[in-house]
Amino acid sequence: MSKQLRVFASATVANVSCGFDVLGFAIDQPGDEITVRMREEPGVVIKSITGDEGRLPLDPEKNTAGVSIKKYLEHIGFDRGVEIELYKGIPIGSGLGSSATSAVAGVFGVNALLGKPLKREELLPFAREGERVASGTAHADNIAPSLLGGFTLIRSYDPLDVVKLKTPAQLYCSVVLPELEVQTKMAREILQDQIPLDKAVVQWGNLAGFIAGLTTSDYDLLGRSLQDVIIEPERSKLIPGFEAVKQAALAAGALGCGISGSGPSLFALTIDKKTAGKVGEAMKTAFLRKQIRSKVYISGINQQGPVILS
Amino acid sequence: MSKQLRVFASATVANVSCGFDVLGFAIDQPGDEITVRMREEPGVVIKSITGDEGRLPLDPEKNTAGVSIKKYLEHIGFDRGVEIELYKGIPIGSGLGSSATSAVAGVFGVNALLGKPLKREELLPFAREGERVASGTAHADNIAPSLLGGFTLIRSYDPLDVVKLKTPAQLYCSVVLPELEVQTKMAREILQDQIPLDKAVVQWGNLAGFIAGLTTSDYDLLGRSLQDVIIEPERSKLIPGFEAVKQAALAAGALGCGISGSGPSLFALTIDKKTAGKVGEAMKTAFLRKQIRSKVYISGINQQGPVILS
Repeated sequence: MSKQLRVFASATVANVSCGFDVLGFAIDQPGDEITVRMREEPGVVIKSITGDEGRLPLDPEKNTAGVSIKKYLEHIGFDRGVEIELYKGIPIGSGLGSSATSAVAGVFGVNALLGKPLKREELLPFAREGERVASGTAHADNIAPSLLGGFTLIRSYDPLDVVKLKTPAQLYCSVVLPELEVQTKMAREILQDQIPLDKAVVQWGNLAGFIAGLTTSDYDLLGRSLQDVIIEPERSKLIPGFEAVKQAALAAGALGCGISGSGPSLFALTIDKKTAGKVGEAMKTAFLRKQIRSKVYISGINQQGPVILS
Repeated sequence: MSKQLRVFASATVANVSCGFDVLGFAIDQPGDEITVRMREEPGVVIKSITGDEGRLPLDPEKNTAGVSIKKYLEHIGFDRGVEIELYKGIPIGSGLGSSATSAVAGVFGVNALLGKPLKREELLPFAREGERVASGTAHADNIAPSLLGGFTLIRSYDPLDVVKLKTPAQLYCSVVLPELEVQTKMAREILQDQIPLDKAVVQWGNLAGFIAGLTTSDYDLLGRSLQDVIIEPERSKLIPGFEAVKQAALAAGALGCGISGSGPSLFALTIDKKTAGKVGEAMKTAFLRKQIRSKVYISGINQQGPVILS
């Protein structure tokens, strides 16, 4: 069968300093591309993965896109199969939601290929199953923004309740990915099970301020609220030079700066593209002073979610 | 001197389930009235307090309104004094921010009497000093909504950063004050210093959802978000019948229901006045089944803050 589609889905920044496990947003780049193609035989076949330096499994049962598509096909009761080719644009282990994006690209593409039997929001549970394979837990804070675009809130995990938030028009994002590896598992293990109530109060003041800032396009409030007194003090220990890079971002005009997901990428928000460029360079330079090379992505907030390229 | 003013300031609901120590809103009633009058002699004199069943101190150094006004007068360098008469409409120890309202009414009244040398927002620190005398800590989550009206967020305590939030037009509030006494001090002591991170995540999902619901007038989202998995399970132990009253409120059509401040008052939010009335009656009836009498206040959200009556 020749029917096929090519889809692009973008990377995401989860946690966003004050919103650990609940907040995330999509950026314009980097992203993953996937080609999905119908097969006569049932099941999912991963024909190729490129851009991953050979690190991702071709076994569909172990691959985030493979699992997501398989669960999706089972749900809709499709009696034939799907073949995919995955082009990884998002570095693995970067803290940019690499596995979530592949899962989203996969189910979005197959759903489009089959004439959209499900609505976009309805694809979320299948992509979560892919995330479960990749990271051990079915977190949704990367999947939701990659699938829906913009800023998203996981209001509740049980039952799953995803809220799409308003995104201020001028917001830009600088992401700097240092040549360090931080394993999601280790980044989770470093966190304390118990946290002080007084710090939790500080955190929810900031989170509430950030949400209010998003919905009213109050950039100054967004900046004041981009603080994390609970997770960042722990996880920043895994990122040499973190404090210097953050201070460099703020000095260059960022509204705020923090760890993207579980790291090692850092993100900074700015109110225009030019400042985003300056901030990205300042962060890169600060990492270099610590003998750490890094890659910079300057990006708008991706409002649309995945797109069909051809 | 005969120059005087009479001011009304309203009660407030702090915490609002998911926003412990940071969120609060003002209701139309009950409230306190204060008459402020200039004196030739320096200092603050509390001439009378009524409606308090003789429980509040006339000593201005020990009275929340007295302290607030004294700090205010010192700040602006007023060389004469002020005499006040306080009419307590808000029951003491109700969880409706009684002390904060008296402090707000006092400084608002005196500032108006002196031709408004300070802007409304600038009065907040002085009212906080009164709150410190009343409750031992200078909390601002009752003062801010009583002074500014509507819903307010204490984004940060250090430095103090108060954000006025949008209030959806149709929102109403039912408050039920049972004949129980809960001391603020005890209500604080019952709380754990450490809380589980996973519950904190649930809480900030709800708080973020509530803020998003306020700013977009999404009543359904407001209702889903009005949950408290950290403070309510502890403090509800101090309120016999809490769960039955809450369930009665929800069954009667409330969006959500929780403890007002540190209790024993319970509040419920509804989308119209008629439902607010039904919800209030249902809550009162549920308390009565536990042999607890209560008083019901049905109220809009007070948008304007304190008003000058004459």
